[in-house]
Parts: sequence; structure tokens; C-alpha cells
Amino acid sequence: MDINHTTVEQYLHEQIPLSKAIDVSVISISESGVILSAPLFPNINHRSTVFGGSMSAVAILAAWTFIHVQLQTLSIPCRIVIQNNHVEYLKPIQATFQAHCAAPPQQEWERLIKAVSKRGKGRVILNVEIYSEGLLVGKFQGQYVALKLEEAD
Amino acid sequence: MDINHTTVEQYLHEQIPLSKAIDVSVISISESGVILSAPLFPNINHRSTVFGGSMSAVAILAAWTFIHVQLQTLSIPCRIVIQNNHVEYLKPIQATFQAHCAAPPQQEWERLIKAVSKRGKGRVILNVEIYSEGLLVGKFQGQYVALKLEEAD
Repeated sequence: MDINHTTVEQYLHEQIPLSKAIDVSVISISESGVILSAPLFPNINHRSTVFGGSMSAVAILAAWTFIHVQLQTLSIPCRIVIQNNHVEYLKPIQATFQAHCAAPPQQEWERLIKAVSKRGKGRVILNVEIYSEGLLVGKFQGQYVALKLEEAD
Repeated sequence: MDINHTTVEQYLHEQIPLSKAIDVSVISISESGVILSAPLFPNINHRSTVFGGSMSAVAILAAWTFIHVQLQTLSIPCRIVIQNNHVEYLKPIQATFQAHCAAPPQQEWERLIKAVSKRGKGRVILNVEIYSEGLLVGKFQGQYVALKLEEAD
């Protein structure tokens, strides 16, 4: 699969209209993680800071994108569903912000791949840190389930 | 304060552009709770169900709106900030959905008012249930802090 940033960004914008409304862009994608970015304006609130719902949404997308791209790269097409998440809003965000989803520990990723390959279903917990103007402004942890598809999704 | 639905809806749409992008509407506002609604389309994902980030955002807004309106009604203008939240995505959402924020237990609400009045700051935990087509599809719990303002916000 082409993991070109633009391709993934277009996919998000076309398939999830909210990602376009909040002007999400893909900064980097690799085996070690995904970084998405979003500007202040379409995500602003009545206090001229980023609305918490926007920060959550970008973090949810960063983690979803990581799993989606990694499983596509491994030619394991899956439906990826979020099951739960916890979010900490640490500081007001007053500018463009970035959501950094880190790859999970290697053994947890391998456990996911094994579960999906053997039973068609696996779970993984991903952590995302949100930064703005060089500061850690939020933390996200989400549990996702990957359900193997018979054909490419 | 006028707690007319339209007034609150206009306030949300004007002050938080994301609430307009996801087409949030106010269904009811009272001392016992707030119900917000959002349609499927602007919140759709690649699986033709509601994007988790949209469900989170509507729940965050429902709880924020409850505290905002109640404190305005009591003439205690505050800045209301979300500190953390936990969200459970129970079922895929395939239609319009509603976020029901329930008033907290009376003693917790009174504790908040007392803290804001005495110390200018108080915390409260709010629970939101998300329904679609008659089914409970998600649960949200968020902790908010209210910071008293010297003048109306």
C-alpha cells in the first residue's frame, strides 16, 4: 500500500468528512508512529483555544491511522473500531497542534497480529500525546479492535 | 439568562465552529439535563457509521452546555474547562444520535456551587449517555472545572 502522506490525508478527508472540517493534515507516517496536525481556527472555541472535542478527534484519528496503515502494509485488511478512550486535557491549546501516536511495544503489536491472523480479531491499546508550541498539552489512550476482512476494505 | 434552545444552539454554532460543522442541535435543556442531537451525514466515517470523534465531541458539548446554562441561570458566570474524559463506544451508530447529559447528584452540584462561590473554582463529574434508534450506543464521563469570572463571559 502507498503510505504517501497525501494519499492517506485524501483518504481521511474523503471518508471521514469531519477530518476535512477540522483541517487535519498528515505530518508523518512510519512504523514507529503517526503524527497528524490541525490548525487553531476551525477547532477554536469561545475562549479562543482549541475545543476539547477537536483535540480528541485528532487523537482518535492518529491512532486509527497508525493501525490502518500498518495493517495495510502487512496486507491484513481489517475493519478497525475504537472501543474506548481516556483523554487528559493538560493545557489550553492556543495554536496549531499535533497528535503523536506512538507504535505500541513490539510484543503488544505482535500479539495483535497473531490474534487477527489466528482468530480474525485482536485488540490493541495505543497512546497519543498532543503537542502545541513545543508543550505537551494533552494525552490520549484508546483501545481499538481490528476485525479481519475477507476482502480489502 | 434566556435558555431558549435556539439561543443556546446559535451560541454553540457561533462560538465553536465544529459544533456547526457536525450540525449539533439542542433538543432540550432543563435543570435535570441537556439533550443534544447530531445527524449521521457530517459525522459519517468510511464504514457509513458515526465517527467516534464526532460522538465524543457531541457528548463533550452536552456536558459543557449543562454546566454553562445552569451557572448562567444562577448568575455565576464561569469559564468551564474540561479536564479529562472517558468514553465507551458500545455499538456502531447508523443514524441520528442524541447525547443525554444528566444533572449530577444534588449534593455534587451543591458542592460545585459552594466551591465556586467560596474559592472561585470547583470541579464536577458529568455523565452522558448516547442513544441512536432507541439503543444505548455510547457512554461518556467527563470532569470539568468551573472558574468564576469577575464579569459575564
